[in-house]
Formats: sequence, C-alpha cells, structure tokens
Amino acid sequence: MDQYPSGHPYTVAVDCIIFGFDGERLKLLLIKRGFEPEKGKWSLMGGFVKPKESLDHAAKRVLHRLTGLEGVYLEQLKAFGMPKRDPRERTISVSYFALIGIHKYHKQVSSSYDSEWFPVTDFPKLIFDHQKMVNLARSRLRYKASLHPILFELLPEKFTMPQLQMLYEDFYLTTFDKRNFSRKILSTNLLIKQKDKDKSSSKRGAFYYKLNKEKYKENFHAFLKFIPNPEHLI
Amino acid sequence: MDQYPSGHPYTVAVDCIIFGFDGERLKLLLIKRGFEPEKGKWSLMGGFVKPKESLDHAAKRVLHRLTGLEGVYLEQLKAFGMPKRDPRERTISVSYFALIGIHKYHKQVSSSYDSEWFPVTDFPKLIFDHQKMVNLARSRLRYKASLHPILFELLPEKFTMPQLQMLYEDFYLTTFDKRNFSRKILSTNLLIKQKDKDKSSSKRGAFYYKLNKEKYKENFHAFLKFIPNPEHLI
Repeated sequence: MDQYPSGHPYTVAVDCIIFGFDGERLKLLLIKRGFEPEKGKWSLMGGFVKPKESLDHAAKRVLHRLTGLEGVYLEQLKAFGMPKRDPRERTISVSYFALIGIHKYHKQVSSSYDSEWFPVTDFPKLIFDHQKMVNLARSRLRYKASLHPILFELLPEKFTMPQLQMLYEDFYLTTFDKRNFSRKILSTNLLIKQKDKDKSSSKRGAFYYKLNKEKYKENFHAFLKFIPNPEHLI
Repeated sequence: MDQYPSGHPYTVAVDCIIFGFDGERLKLLLIKRGFEPEKGKWSLMGGFVKPKESLDHAAKRVLHRLTGLEGVYLEQLKAFGMPKRDPRERTISVSYFALIGIHKYHKQVSSSYDSEWFPVTDFPKLIFDHQKMVNLARSRLRYKASLHPILFELLPEKFTMPQLQMLYEDFYLTTFDKRNFSRKILSTNLLIKQKDKDKSSSKRGAFYYKLNKEKYKENFHAFLKFIPNPEHLI
C-alpha cells in the first residue's frame, strides 16, 4: 500500500454484457437509458455496487433485477477505470459477461425494462466505454470458445447442426464448410444424436442433437496436452 | 445503471502479483508492511488509484515506484471486492500480475523497500485476500502458459534446457522426464540452439538456447486449430 492514509473515494459499478442465441443469430441484450446523462441512448445493463455486497453479487443482482434470470453463466471480464469514462464522476466499472439461452428466458427479459436484443454484428452506438466492453467480451469469449465448448451455454437442450454452425459462424464472423464443420464437431464426441428432427427450416429436416454432459465435463480441458492432469491446475 | 442518483464511494487500489525466475526457482516478490493495520506482515505490492490515472497506469506506477522496473509484462487479473476484505474501509482492489526476469532487475528491486523474493511453493502468510490473488494469478498463468509460450518472459535472453525444465516444473508442481521435456519443447521450433555452453552447474555443461522471436509471435496462437486466422480474433 502507498503511504497515503487512505485512497480517494470513487463510485464502483458493474456492467453486464449479455449474449444470447435465438437459434439463428448471436445477440446482445441492451437497454435504453431512461435518465440523464445520455437519456434515450443504448447502454449495457449495469448498476452500482452496494455497501454490503460483493462484486459478483452485484452483477447477479443487476442481471436478475433487469431480466428475471438466475443461475446463468456469468464471469468477470475486466475492471474499466479510465478517469473520464463516466462524465458525472469517477466511476470504476467491473464488467461481467453472461451467456443466456434466449429460448428459455425470452418472455421475462423484455417485460419491465426498455430492453432489446440486437445482432452482435449490428447494434446501436453505446454510451461511455460500453462498446469497448462488448468488444473485449467478444474477444474473450471467442478465445474461450475455441478452447472450451462454452458456447453450448447459449443453446437449447436440443439443437440442430445447422443451428450450431450458425452460432459459430456468427461468433467468428466467418463461414465454415458444412461437412467439415459437422465432422470436426462430431469428432469431439460431445454430441448425442437424437431420433427426431427439426422440420421447421427444411422439408428434409435436420436431426436434433443433445450435449453429452459427462463428456463435456471430461473434455473441457482436453486441449491441454502438454501438461499432465491440467484439470487440477485451473 | 440503477435509478440511484449516484453510487456509494469506495476506495480503489491496485495490487501486483510479481513473478520472477532466478534460474532455478519460480519466485514471488513480497513486501513487509511498514504501517498499520497488519504492520510487519507480508503483503503484495499495492497502492491506491489516483484521481487522474487509469487502473493500468496505477499498476505501472506502483510497480515502477517500488521496483524501478519499466516495460515488464503486466496484465489485469481480476477485481476483488468482498465487503470486508480490507478492515479499514470498503476497498475494491484490482489485481495485476507481472512477469519479471530477476536476472535483469535484481539490484534495483530490493533497494528502497523492505522486499524479498520467496519461492512460490513456500512463502509467508499474506494479509487480507492477497493469498487468493496469488492463487488465482498462478492458475491464470498456468492456464496461459499451457497455451502460449508466455513463461519465456521470465527467462534471460540465453538459457539452458535444464533451466527451462526447472521453471516449468516449479510452475506446474510436477516433474517431467528430461528427454521427453526436451523433445516436446524443441518440437515447437521456438528455440534456437547456441554454440556456447553454461558450465556453471555441471562439468559437461548445458547448451544455451535463445527464443526464436519470430516463431514466438507466429506460433503464439498455433493451438487454435479449429478457427481460421485466430490471431485476428484475440
């Protein structure tokens, strides 16, 4: 610690970058600010940290209060603290990203707040440094998703191969060859083919798959080939 | 943001987890507190964030003021914000980890502060939640080091295979078979064998190696096999 008797007081907030997948597109949940400054502009969901709660608790509380959601994947991303990021006063914001299955929560989400899901490739300008937070969350998530099958958090219990491919393509802003994609994904042994088909998007239909949850757990760190028992390290 | 007109004011600090490698052991730089509370106890190096500086700047400043070091590898780890982590007042601490070549900086480091390098496997009890910060930094670093050749930040320009092996063994708290280790590391094509030997630790001596910095850059993301051009994503 410094020699100061104490530090300067700042406001501390949390902001949540909320990703969802509606079966076709990767989306971002934003709210319209109902107060100044920047009234009427789009923003991430956030809130101030209360005196008796932890940062994680504040993020959970904000997410729950604004969306009705509980038990979702939520991870601290980074603390943002540029001196003039918030024009009102010096505010440190600890950002979190959340992965939500839109299919499950859609109704609760839009009820009480002026919120809207936007495609991650096309959403309005955001206030403060929220655009930077979204960019960083997308990078971090791309990074994690290339190592861990984390994107399954976004999918419903049953999903099709074309849906999974659309999710990955939206995520990495690229296109994959259909057969290669399917072959690579199936080679992970993470999916269990179901007997029924989704016929909503084509006559022929597409088989449903489910995630093999045991394999998911088992293979989560399988890429760490060099280090023995990497699962004990993380 | 919440409907509150403003948040509660808290103190914001940074704490640095500083790793170094002395050629034999992985070490952690700690300071002895010269003031209350917890006077005389061991602590990470930290300081309060000043009104006109960013969090990154505060971490750099603290690191520089206490060690004389500049241009070292420094990365934000996580914001710690449990309500009673600091008994004096509610303090949010943003932790950073740094990787230092002890060989280069040793003299500056210990001059003005009561600081000491401890083996990461055997260091004194730390104040507040600093032990948690160290644990998380070690996890994060193990994780990164199993994917990226990041540990080279800790090595001098020229190093031997036994040194590299000692570093990895201390890092992962394990032992590697000498020939396997050497074979795996060399298969990355990251090292350039030198003509001279280090004869300080054995008669026969051990060849020096240097890092191939081009390959280092090139291969940094080589493990991301599934995603095309992953280097553009991070």
